[in-house]
Parts: sequence; structure tokens; C-alpha cells
Amino acid sequence: MKISEIGEFGLINRISKDTIINPKNILLGIGDDCAAYHASPDKIVLATCDMLVENIHFTLSTCSPRQLGRKAVAVNISDIAAMGGIPCQALLSLGIASSTSVEFIDQLADGMKEEAKLFEVNIVGGDTVRSPLGLVINITLIGEVEPDLMVKRSTARPGDLIMVTGELGGSAAGLILLLKEKKYSSVPLNIAEEVKLAHLSPAPRIKEGRIIARERLANSMIDISDGLASDLTRICEASAVGAKVYASKIPILSAAKEVGGLIKRNPLDLALYGGEDYELLLTVSPQKADNIIKSLKKELNAKVSVIGEIREGQEGIKLEDLQGKVSDLQPKGYNHFRR
Amino acid sequence: MKISEIGEFGLINRISKDTIINPKNILLGIGDDCAAYHASPDKIVLATCDMLVENIHFTLSTCSPRQLGRKAVAVNISDIAAMGGIPCQALLSLGIASSTSVEFIDQLADGMKEEAKLFEVNIVGGDTVRSPLGLVINITLIGEVEPDLMVKRSTARPGDLIMVTGELGGSAAGLILLLKEKKYSSVPLNIAEEVKLAHLSPAPRIKEGRIIARERLANSMIDISDGLASDLTRICEASAVGAKVYASKIPILSAAKEVGGLIKRNPLDLALYGGEDYELLLTVSPQKADNIIKSLKKELNAKVSVIGEIREGQEGIKLEDLQGKVSDLQPKGYNHFRR
Repeated sequence: MKISEIGEFGLINRISKDTIINPKNILLGIGDDCAAYHASPDKIVLATCDMLVENIHFTLSTCSPRQLGRKAVAVNISDIAAMGGIPCQALLSLGIASSTSVEFIDQLADGMKEEAKLFEVNIVGGDTVRSPLGLVINITLIGEVEPDLMVKRSTARPGDLIMVTGELGGSAAGLILLLKEKKYSSVPLNIAEEVKLAHLSPAPRIKEGRIIARERLANSMIDISDGLASDLTRICEASAVGAKVYASKIPILSAAKEVGGLIKRNPLDLALYGGEDYELLLTVSPQKADNIIKSLKKELNAKVSVIGEIREGQEGIKLEDLQGKVSDLQPKGYNHFRR
Repeated sequence: MKISEIGEFGLINRISKDTIINPKNILLGIGDDCAAYHASPDKIVLATCDMLVENIHFTLSTCSPRQLGRKAVAVNISDIAAMGGIPCQALLSLGIASSTSVEFIDQLADGMKEEAKLFEVNIVGGDTVRSPLGLVINITLIGEVEPDLMVKRSTARPGDLIMVTGELGGSAAGLILLLKEKKYSSVPLNIAEEVKLAHLSPAPRIKEGRIIARERLANSMIDISDGLASDLTRICEASAVGAKVYASKIPILSAAKEVGGLIKRNPLDLALYGGEDYELLLTVSPQKADNIIKSLKKELNAKVSVIGEIREGQEGIKLEDLQGKVSDLQPKGYNHFRR
């Protein structure tokens, strides 16, 4: 069945089912001119949005509509995690071709609702429009954080240790395999699946972000969407500081190392420049680093690694490679509109 | 100069200038993972979004980038007006081709900032991405309203009078002229300009909405985006009521009547089914109708007309035409994905 057979209102009716996970404070969900809800009186509001465009951010040949829906929500949740916040309400705009099947949209919406439900996010509003030339998804996510716990990008301090949650490089390795499925068909299935999933199904680090915020452990934080090098550069620019990162200390996903070897791509490059790992990159006063490692281990059995330190601004942003050679860390990563 | 020459970060730097009109309560605007601000503790949050797609919602041959920017913000502000609310913060996602000129985007952004400034709306966040196949704009607008003043769609009552602000049909007439500029070149310039402007530069009825909300004058309200017939049907469906509308009472813009005559389109059809007038459609207890007319006249010198009444649900939604013949009012109007 095509969307043209059920029309815009039929479509909205299907999408708007089961979108309110946490009805407390919600006055109006989908269906009026605006959504309406009570904000927590003692918290700061956080708001973020991401637009995903077919064949730029995703291709429907490499991901299922359900995976796409989950990821579209997850990348926004990751932005809330990077502030130490809690995600609350989402607004969803969909641009779709009339010839799209209702089943496709149902699965896309199901994926969005699954991810939203996992983090107790309500889908309170949105817009559905025709987009003849390809699928466009915009999600706006509204969250909250206690005023004294919010972690910004702009407050890294010289002397801070640079830390990163989890392991990097999986998403970039996965994307390469997804785009060149045939060329790399010799990569063993289990490690291929692991890195593809890292790309298709990122796990936003809300729990990690909340622990880091709650225990006031970080001076600055960002999520890794464009790549460690790019996102560290953002922290440094916003904070007017420099940094030194040690290649030997960067935690690289074991499967990404294996894939990198097999497809002749340096795993360190995947970790530094690949992006879309959606881990948290933070800077921390040295005396608090052990606290973070212990708290994340104890409460979530999660890994966090020290990878370098924040320096004075005039020292620039440096990478010490595996041979001990120091050079400028280039903020290579995804840049829309680059030449 | 093309966007590809300044890159994504150059683009964001240009757009993010002068976006905070009302800095009170703003902790972070564009530039971190999320925007952050304090919500008013005693108010309800309102949130709405609209996605505009090139060649579906607009064509760049009929509007300037500045007009497009203003309208993209205005249509969202209109949704806040329809709840009786005050607009506060906007998030702006732009999908654009790399070949787009920087001047185009500057003018588009200037238009958005002009309209936002007019209503004291901050642009606090957004996303800029590549969209090879055409321009896509998504705006999410967050506003607020006092808990006891919010006006919904779903609370119309049998016996209410149906009222509408301003005059209808101008936007539809303007769109027809814009799309067939050559065919209708004989329409006198002054009236052609008036209806084109009605289409290109709608004025959201925030002041009207605030007076209606503040004096508790309306039982239900919606803004006319898809057309009087469609939007009245939405109120009736949400409120489980019927309605009767009198064609003779519908206020039609004088220029729309003139244009209608010249291009052989029934002005009543333009008013009922054309849409995009962004006037407020409301239902009111009969004893309050005079109050509304007087308050809007006195405070804003604005017009509001009684055009019918709300009936019991089983009576359906009826139109009495100029000859006194009563028939079902068809919710014709813009429906994305229709067959």
C-alpha cells in the first residue's frame, strides 16, 4: 500500500499511535497546532535538532527503515547526553515521496518509537510533507538538566585530562563495509556484523553522561559525531585551549582493528577521523579521572580512557603518533559543503 | 561565492550572528551540542515544527530568499498564536545544495532573523546539511502560555459562534497569480501585488491570539493554514461537534474578490479552500462575541467576523451558500500525498 492511498491524515494517524511514553506533564501530544507540556520547574531546558537527508546521511540500500528510525532519534539523544542531560520530548518532521510504501513508514516510525521508548522520550509533535526527491528526516529533541550540572564545550581548562567513553572506529569501519559490500565480502561475518551494527545502531551514552554530570566529574564534554579529531578541535576552539592526544592511548574497537587490517585502512585513522561513534569526549581535572573510571565501571560496567591532556591555547592541538612523533592534529571529519 | 568555498563551519558562523534577540534566560545559543535556556516557571511549554520543501511548499522563482525566510518563521509563529501563546525560541535546520550561493543563504537567514526579531524569538540552535536535490527548511518553534489561558482545538461546544480574524482568500489568489504570472498579466498591478504579498508575507496573529487568550474569549482556536473548510473540520473532529457556516458572512479580501473575477475563480472558493491565510479561526460562547469584536477593534484596530455556529456532532459540517442552499462543507484543502 502506498502513502498516496491513505493520505496525509491517514499517515499522521498511523505515526501518532503510541508516541507518549511518559504522560506525566504532557497536556497535548500530536494533533493540535502545538504540543503542550509542563517543563520541570527546577531544570534548564536543552534543545537540539538534526536533519538527515537520503543519500547524504544514509542510503536505504544499507540500512533498514527501522534502523534508520532508531538512529535518527539516537543521534539527537547523544547531543543531550553530551550536556549531561535527560531527553524528554521529540518533534519529528518527515519529508517523503508519495510513492513510499505505508509499510516502510510504519517500520521507520516503529524504529523511532523504539529508540524513544528506551530513553522515555515522548514524540509530541511533527510534520509530514511530500518530498519528491528523497527522504528527509528532521528530529528536534528537547531535554533538561539541573542548572549546576550542565556540561558545556567551552569550559575545558589547561591541565585537564582528555577522556573518551567506550571504543572508537567501529562506525567508520562499518560504513566502509556497508558501502562496498561486495569488495569486502572476505571479511569474516562476525566482525563485519559488529562494525556494521556500530554504524547502524549507535547507543547514546545518556547513562554515562548522567553519572559524569551528577558527580560533577567533567569540565567540558561533547559527543563524537564528526570524529575524535574534529570534535576535540571543537572543544579546544570553544574553550580557547590546546590539546595533546596520544595515539597509543586511543581505545579502538577490536573488530575495527581487524577490519582495518583486512581492508588496508589504518584503524587509528578510523578512530580519529571516522566519526559517528557517539561516544562521549570529555575533559576532566586530573584528580577526578580515577573517579570517572571507577563510577562508570561500577555502575554501568562501562569503559572510559584517558587519551591526552588539555594544554594552553598557544600550544595548538597535537597528536603524538605510535612512534612518538608529534604533529598537528587535523580536524578532518565530515564537513558538509566541503570542496 | 558558493557555500562550498566557506564550508559548513563558515556557513554556521554567518547564520549564527545576531540570533539572540532576547538574551534573558538564554544560557547557550548556537554552538554547543544543545541550546540551553531557562523556561518560564509558571507557564506551559508549546512546541511546533514545519518542514518546507522546495517545489512543494515554495518555488524560488516566485519568492525572494528573504521572503521565504520570513514566511518559514511566520508559519510556525502562527501555530503558537493559535494556542494563545507567546513564541520564544526557534531551532532551524537547513538542507542546501553545495552550489547555493552564500548571498542566497545570507538573505534567507536575514529574512528568518527579521521575522524572529519582530516577535522577539531567539534562534537558539539548528543544523546545516547538504541536500543535493533541493532546499529543505525545518523550523521548530518553542513558545509558552499561561496554563489557564491555553486554547485548544478540541474544546468547541455546540452553540459556540464561529469567528475568523481578518479577511480570507488573498493568499490563494496570490499563489495563482505567482504561478501563472504571464497568463494573468492583465490583472492590475496594485491588486496583484496585494494578493501576492498576502501569500508571500503572511502576518501571524500573535497579538490577536494573546488578546483572545488573555480575556478568555475563545472555547477553541486554530490557524488557517490548509483552508477554512479543512481547518474548521479539524476543530469539529477534535471536538466531536458539527458546524454551520454561512457563505454570505465569510470575510473575503477585496483584492481577492477582484482577482477572482478577473481570473474566473470563485472568490468564495479561494476563501474556503485556498489556505495559507494564517488568520485565526475560533469558536466563542455567543455572549462573548461582542467582547472579541470590541477588544480587537480597540486594541489592534483588527477585524473579526462571525461566520457561523457550532452544532451537535450528528448535524455534520454544513455550508449555506449565497442562495440559501445548505450542503456538506468539504474539507478540501492542501493534503500532502493525496491521490
